[in-house]
Amino acid sequence: MTKYAIGIDYGTLSGRAVLVDMADGREVASASMEYRHAVIEGELNGVPLGRDWALQDPADYLEVLETVMPRVIAEAGIDKNDIVGVGVDFTSSTLIPVKADGTPLCFLDEFKNEPFAYAKLWKDHSANAQAIRISDALREAAPERLARYGGNLSSEWTFPKLLHIADEAPHVYDAADRFIEAGDWLVWMLTGQEIHSECHLGFKALWSRELGFVPNEFWGKLNPRMKDIIGTKVSEKTTPVGVGAGYVTAEIAARIGLPAGIPVATDLIDAHAAFPACGVTKPGTLLLIVGTSGCHLLLGDSEKAMSGICAVTQDTVIPGFYTYEAAQAAVGDVFSWFVKNCVPAAYKQEAEERGMNIHALLREKARRLKVGESGLVALDWWNGNRCVLQDSRLSGLIVGLTLSTKPEEIYRALLESTAYGTRRIIENFEENGVEIRDVIACGGIAMKDDLIMQIYADVTRRTIRLAKPVEAMAVGSAICGAAASGMYKDIHEAAAHMGHARDKIFTPNADDAAVYDKLYDEYRQLHDYFGIENDMMKRLKNIRED
Amino acid sequence: MTKYAIGIDYGTLSGRAVLVDMADGREVASASMEYRHAVIEGELNGVPLGRDWALQDPADYLEVLETVMPRVIAEAGIDKNDIVGVGVDFTSSTLIPVKADGTPLCFLDEFKNEPFAYAKLWKDHSANAQAIRISDALREAAPERLARYGGNLSSEWTFPKLLHIADEAPHVYDAADRFIEAGDWLVWMLTGQEIHSECHLGFKALWSRELGFVPNEFWGKLNPRMKDIIGTKVSEKTTPVGVGAGYVTAEIAARIGLPAGIPVATDLIDAHAAFPACGVTKPGTLLLIVGTSGCHLLLGDSEKAMSGICAVTQDTVIPGFYTYEAAQAAVGDVFSWFVKNCVPAAYKQEAEERGMNIHALLREKARRLKVGESGLVALDWWNGNRCVLQDSRLSGLIVGLTLSTKPEEIYRALLESTAYGTRRIIENFEENGVEIRDVIACGGIAMKDDLIMQIYADVTRRTIRLAKPVEAMAVGSAICGAAASGMYKDIHEAAAHMGHARDKIFTPNADDAAVYDKLYDEYRQLHDYFGIENDMMKRLKNIRED
Repeated sequence: MTKYAIGIDYGTLSGRAVLVDMADGREVASASMEYRHAVIEGELNGVPLGRDWALQDPADYLEVLETVMPRVIAEAGIDKNDIVGVGVDFTSSTLIPVKADGTPLCFLDEFKNEPFAYAKLWKDHSANAQAIRISDALREAAPERLARYGGNLSSEWTFPKLLHIADEAPHVYDAADRFIEAGDWLVWMLTGQEIHSECHLGFKALWSRELGFVPNEFWGKLNPRMKDIIGTKVSEKTTPVGVGAGYVTAEIAARIGLPAGIPVATDLIDAHAAFPACGVTKPGTLLLIVGTSGCHLLLGDSEKAMSGICAVTQDTVIPGFYTYEAAQAAVGDVFSWFVKNCVPAAYKQEAEERGMNIHALLREKARRLKVGESGLVALDWWNGNRCVLQDSRLSGLIVGLTLSTKPEEIYRALLESTAYGTRRIIENFEENGVEIRDVIACGGIAMKDDLIMQIYADVTRRTIRLAKPVEAMAVGSAICGAAASGMYKDIHEAAAHMGHARDKIFTPNADDAAVYDKLYDEYRQLHDYFGIENDMMKRLKNIRED
Repeated sequence: MTKYAIGIDYGTLSGRAVLVDMADGREVASASMEYRHAVIEGELNGVPLGRDWALQDPADYLEVLETVMPRVIAEAGIDKNDIVGVGVDFTSSTLIPVKADGTPLCFLDEFKNEPFAYAKLWKDHSANAQAIRISDALREAAPERLARYGGNLSSEWTFPKLLHIADEAPHVYDAADRFIEAGDWLVWMLTGQEIHSECHLGFKALWSRELGFVPNEFWGKLNPRMKDIIGTKVSEKTTPVGVGAGYVTAEIAARIGLPAGIPVATDLIDAHAAFPACGVTKPGTLLLIVGTSGCHLLLGDSEKAMSGICAVTQDTVIPGFYTYEAAQAAVGDVFSWFVKNCVPAAYKQEAEERGMNIHALLREKARRLKVGESGLVALDWWNGNRCVLQDSRLSGLIVGLTLSTKPEEIYRALLESTAYGTRRIIENFEENGVEIRDVIACGGIAMKDDLIMQIYADVTRRTIRLAKPVEAMAVGSAICGAAASGMYKDIHEAAAHMGHARDKIFTPNADDAAVYDKLYDEYRQLHDYFGIENDMMKRLKNIRED
């Protein structure tokens, strides 16, 4: 008798549920929905927001849940009683201030026009000053802990966001009984159990199994309001991954069409759900997630102290292993910027006449170019550099422009620049003794763009396989749900049956790779000059802000 | 009784005649026409041309003459017998191989499919290897002569073109009785006199009053065919500027509607005709010609040896003075490149809906930006750097790009980059003791673009006046014609009456200039890094050509 698990993947703009065959991971059905309020930027109910703000309304998360779950079950045409497990993944750190019963503050009338009371989305960068203050203080107080995060905190993480609230919205800080990750909150809504996934805590909240939280004494020095934050506003209790966190309550079951009592797995950060989806539960395989931004994930047997990564944590995704994370702050975002701002009308018209997506047209033209033919090299820092330089104030650069430069040449140079960025990250792992034997790619851009994957293969001189699941994150969550169901003994066994890479591979072309070696040399010179030797990009940002 | 002079200005794509009041320089009438074959690129009568080739058909020059002269006289509605002088200016070095009677080789059936038999337009860069060979040989044999040309020859100049013909088309070299500048050839067609203007010779053919031509011995070593070039293929006789070179023949007079016997002045290089047009006949005033490319002209009492200029020559424009020339290889060309390749459909649509030129729309949006707001700095080397680095293999660069960068921000950064390039040229003059007291601007872009002139004023911290004539080059040629007529005692007196700058001035804004000082510091760092310290741009061109 076939059994099924459902994975629910909450991305930046939409949520989706995928119903998966527990035997082999086959995606039986899927349903998705965009958030009603998308990302709240610019203003909230007439209250202006700073340029770096990005909020969401948790009501949208519940609406997605109530909409996509009945739909995916209906589309699959199965008996809902054959669904035996549920998993969730979510963007991170997306932080919600809630009351003791889990009600978000922004659901209360008194807070509905208060920006700080909403979900602060992962890509809200308004806590940049706080990230710097915490990094500086940790460098003094706990350098070995900071070293696990590559030596710097991002404003996207949990504690910069918390300090920002304590500093600038003390009434919100005081009114919240807890601050909770949106993914944990979703599991709470499903199970009635307040949980705090070690995946979020390890990667975004400076927690580790070995050291626990950064102690209250440290936080109290940054803001007296935070002197007892651990144990009050932030739960001391943490929830391990790879296991069940609770069971679907009768109340929510009725609203979303699931049987009550099904196990729900501890939620993961969205990108990290790709591990089980690709069947990766051991060290040596680099997961390359190529989407709006880029993410580079790798398991390790041990912890190597190294700079230039986002984090290394223990037991936070696949129990028994360390997880290394590196990232590129913008990948698909750069290509979208180009299409929106730099593609001439004649190209748009050609795409329309031929019934093509503009990206597809640009890729068609870019594919005809020989490697190096454009004479262009770009630095992929349109949204700063997250790894290995970890400097959000860096910016993009193009060199080699001439009067005969064509749009598709610039487009290809941008694709290539993100491949160079990935090569730099791979080199950094290898320079630090973290072995990479093979590479599996997933994410929206990897799955639909053969050209970029071939460029990545040529630039990195690596054979790249694609993930088999179309919706890798959701399938990874479903595998967590399957593991939680008890039908497999653990996440390793569930992933071994249900997670796969495709047969399709991209193999480096020796001639192209040789030219890319030369171009990468130029990229490295630009990288080191503008990233390390000359602060020009930061001075230009300062002038801009003045 | 009012008398008139006509100036004929031959540009890259069209020729124009302007009829001018001899008393005050007023532009009474003008007529222009595009060349029938424009620039011959890609192929000639089915014969493929190399990428760097740019030819013209001298028949087009005659067609323009025969078309615009009757038109401009008719439009002015004057008695043609009141026209008492004619002047000509032309692009340079635009070189035509001719028979002894002035017939271009390409007019002969046997040469009509031979690219080397046509006019090699100034911007033909196919003789790049020859330019390098000549520069290297001069560096050995006559460094003091090379120093007058900033230390390097351009492939646009006369002798690289001649050596190219001798090397690769010996049958053309042998068949030609003379090689002549297109401007000189035009005067020959008007007057029946073969002339060789010292303006072209001084700036483009390494000739100087003091040293004469580079001797035959030198040329014979580079190509034995050239062992007697001076005195055979290249005339030894040179024609001074600022005076009459001959008189309109009866034959041509009948074809173009002029009275026979009118004096024709020695032709000038087009940009240099701006001197008399702006009334500049003494040192201290920088002429800033802002068009497709940029040109910076200045008179001096003496010759200062300096690098980073195109040339310094004696008596080649205004008798009695040295002329310094510096240049930017692309100015308007960069903005045109941007409009063609980088402006999104939405902007094009907005311009169409509002009935605006796309440049005007971009300038409108760019004008709203505060100085430094974009965070962008560009290097203006889309067509290489002609001064002060003199390296045609440099290329364009933009730094500071982010996901929020808008097209008008890039456009403005490109405008600014050309202003930084001009500031660098001005600084180079000053560092070498060549004084600049004031600045007058002319050229197509200067005359129609207030925004760019304000940016130039702010960036250079100079007050900038505009030329009064709408067609400065043509008016300058008319003034030469007026001087040749004998109605003024010399070019100085003619220019004093007929050449003017406008009352309209652009004054530096102190606040903006202060921010531009900072941005220029960044430009200078990029300039020195990519222009001097790191050969990346040249390596990228090498990779491209491989």
